[in-house]
Amino acid sequence: MARAALLHLLRHRSVAPTTAPLSAYKCLSRNSKTPSGIKWTSFCRAFSSKAAVNDIIGIDMANTDSGVAVMEGKERLDPFSLVADELSLIANRLRSMVVADVSNLASAAEYFFKIGAEGKRFRPTVLLLMATALNVHIPELPPAGVGDTLPTDLRTSQQRIAEITEMIHVASLLHDDVLDDADKRRGIGSLNAVMGNKLAVLAGDFLLSRACVSLASLKNTEVVTLIATVVENLVTGETMQLTTASKQRFSMDYYMQKTYNKTASLLSNSCKSIAILAGHTAEVAMLAFEYGKNLGLAFQLIDDVLDFTGTSASLGKGSLSDIRHGIITAPILFAMEEFPELHAVLDQGFKNPANVDIALGFLGKSSGIQRTKELAMKHANLAAQVIESLPESDDADVIRSRQALIDLTQRVITRNK
Amino acid sequence: MARAALLHLLRHRSVAPTTAPLSAYKCLSRNSKTPSGIKWTSFCRAFSSKAAVNDIIGIDMANTDSGVAVMEGKERLDPFSLVADELSLIANRLRSMVVADVSNLASAAEYFFKIGAEGKRFRPTVLLLMATALNVHIPELPPAGVGDTLPTDLRTSQQRIAEITEMIHVASLLHDDVLDDADKRRGIGSLNAVMGNKLAVLAGDFLLSRACVSLASLKNTEVVTLIATVVENLVTGETMQLTTASKQRFSMDYYMQKTYNKTASLLSNSCKSIAILAGHTAEVAMLAFEYGKNLGLAFQLIDDVLDFTGTSASLGKGSLSDIRHGIITAPILFAMEEFPELHAVLDQGFKNPANVDIALGFLGKSSGIQRTKELAMKHANLAAQVIESLPESDDADVIRSRQALIDLTQRVITRNK
Repeated sequence: MARAALLHLLRHRSVAPTTAPLSAYKCLSRNSKTPSGIKWTSFCRAFSSKAAVNDIIGIDMANTDSGVAVMEGKERLDPFSLVADELSLIANRLRSMVVADVSNLASAAEYFFKIGAEGKRFRPTVLLLMATALNVHIPELPPAGVGDTLPTDLRTSQQRIAEITEMIHVASLLHDDVLDDADKRRGIGSLNAVMGNKLAVLAGDFLLSRACVSLASLKNTEVVTLIATVVENLVTGETMQLTTASKQRFSMDYYMQKTYNKTASLLSNSCKSIAILAGHTAEVAMLAFEYGKNLGLAFQLIDDVLDFTGTSASLGKGSLSDIRHGIITAPILFAMEEFPELHAVLDQGFKNPANVDIALGFLGKSSGIQRTKELAMKHANLAAQVIESLPESDDADVIRSRQALIDLTQRVITRNK
Repeated sequence: MARAALLHLLRHRSVAPTTAPLSAYKCLSRNSKTPSGIKWTSFCRAFSSKAAVNDIIGIDMANTDSGVAVMEGKERLDPFSLVADELSLIANRLRSMVVADVSNLASAAEYFFKIGAEGKRFRPTVLLLMATALNVHIPELPPAGVGDTLPTDLRTSQQRIAEITEMIHVASLLHDDVLDDADKRRGIGSLNAVMGNKLAVLAGDFLLSRACVSLASLKNTEVVTLIATVVENLVTGETMQLTTASKQRFSMDYYMQKTYNKTASLLSNSCKSIAILAGHTAEVAMLAFEYGKNLGLAFQLIDDVLDFTGTSASLGKGSLSDIRHGIITAPILFAMEEFPELHAVLDQGFKNPANVDIALGFLGKSSGIQRTKELAMKHANLAAQVIESLPESDDADVIRSRQALIDLTQRVITRNK
């Protein structure tokens, strides 16, 4: 019943999943329209009414401020420890895949794959769990060091997607850091700061080309198209962020589309690729896509909250990096709905640091942070519900991985860093 | 006989074509070794002896300073006019393929595809001629403007390779111009100069992703791998050019490998892709690869001469852009063999403009320019000979296209701009 209701909603949206408008926030807005001009009223009415949400996701939204109720009574798993062995295998293979013939390119390309600089490995974790959640058993892992001799079976192909996703992610970080003149990343100097802009641009291009070579080896053109579209979306998202036009910077629609492009597209399309490689139906592939999309959106919305609050719950304790760079995110956009006078402050920009304080003042008086968290929670819950909607299985590994994927949706919104 | 001799030579080289050492210059060097340590002496002795060359390429090298004798007695064709209609079709399709949803990205991406800024369209011309030369008839062209409704037949797939090649070429120009702080390109402002470094980097990434999407639509994973390797080679070549180590900058081996990566890889692998799409044997695909590789090398060697001479035959009349940027090319490398004292000048660099004059002085006394032209000629003649070695055909279109490809090899080395 829950699955049927979710599938009905997904099927009857007016936009295809790959260019999906990011719908949940519409329920928090007023009189919003889809790009094709159709009012979302009826969808939102159904969707945001408590009873309907309860029906769809099986929890009482009114009582789930943190959304953790989804987990009630179920074993909590550490999603990362479930795939730890495979993550190590992938990390080793990534280091061997980015080896370049030319020494300075090699140093640049491996920079964020070195032990200690690999980041949280959030994306590979999601993808490996998704691979198992889609009814595929984890194979016997080979002894360390012989990863290259693995047969090109399904699991290996799915691991490749995790590797490719990580390479594309790092490539986009390298180029973004050049564009933003960033000097730090993952607690160490950014590559552009350490080796210069030229090598950072080239290393990004190199990782993209290596990802493309690896992608081609999967011999699945649908997957190649999905992943190539991700790169296009990443570029589009980054370009959208460069805009200086008020109409766009102050639009929630625009922000959500940018967020899809910059963060959610990679997760959604790589999750879909995992399903396609396993030979799943279009319906299951779409569910995988929706999981990645909603998880990615929830992740970024919380990121945007943490930019204001940091590890504490207080405003102004975060790095405030977005607002200082003139990047307007959901908390401010929601605050503007309540305090239209914020427009003028944002239009003036933040060269004058006093304007940051004024903007924070309005944000503090508004429900911007809270509404952003609620929106993140809605997307996290949608992601969790997608997992509940997958074809039934009584395989213990499958069940455990699905539970871990659901757990991830809650970790994403309850994290404080 | 000529074909058999060439195939024998190609087959018995010690390195695979995709990582081919760039052999012809070895005949001009002394005691050179292949990367695997095998002396090239016997190959070079056979190859550089006049009789052997005559046997292979059917002309008297001693009397072909410009190499035009290859054309003797044969109709001279304008290679560009043979494929003019298709070039227009491709130009229109390229303009429609690079349309982006975000307006400033759209302006950036289309910058070098606008009418008047398209460049010489050398690569698409070569590829369309190669498609016909490999026994494929030019189809009836559809009326202008309906390009998108063409069926995905062989010719359309081959046109896609021409489009993809042009997109990758332009993407690499955009990134190179950012890396080099260039302010001019194709007679207009470089994109980085006009729209800034950020948009130039993003537009390059965007073109690469569009190229990748188009590539995936061909549903041929061998071709995807070849073209992805090109992007990797382009990045490797650009990185090699950044080196400041004397050992590498002053090495002819290094220069030729860089030139293969930066210029010849794109032509060779896209020519090979044209053959693969047509279902040709590995042998024919290798011939197509060798044509592209040798034409690309000849092209770049002459480019490096023209950087010194410009449209005149006099030294110092070119833009001298390479040497001023500290980029050491073949003419200087040959001059250094005759005047080792050039080392010290090059090591000092060219911040002092007087050093440019000193280097030009040594170059003028040396046979550097002449030996570079001879090397270009050897590669051009190898390319021409490859075409003569293709499987026989009595189809008039095929014969005409092959003649045009041979003609191109001579135009490349006799051009003065």
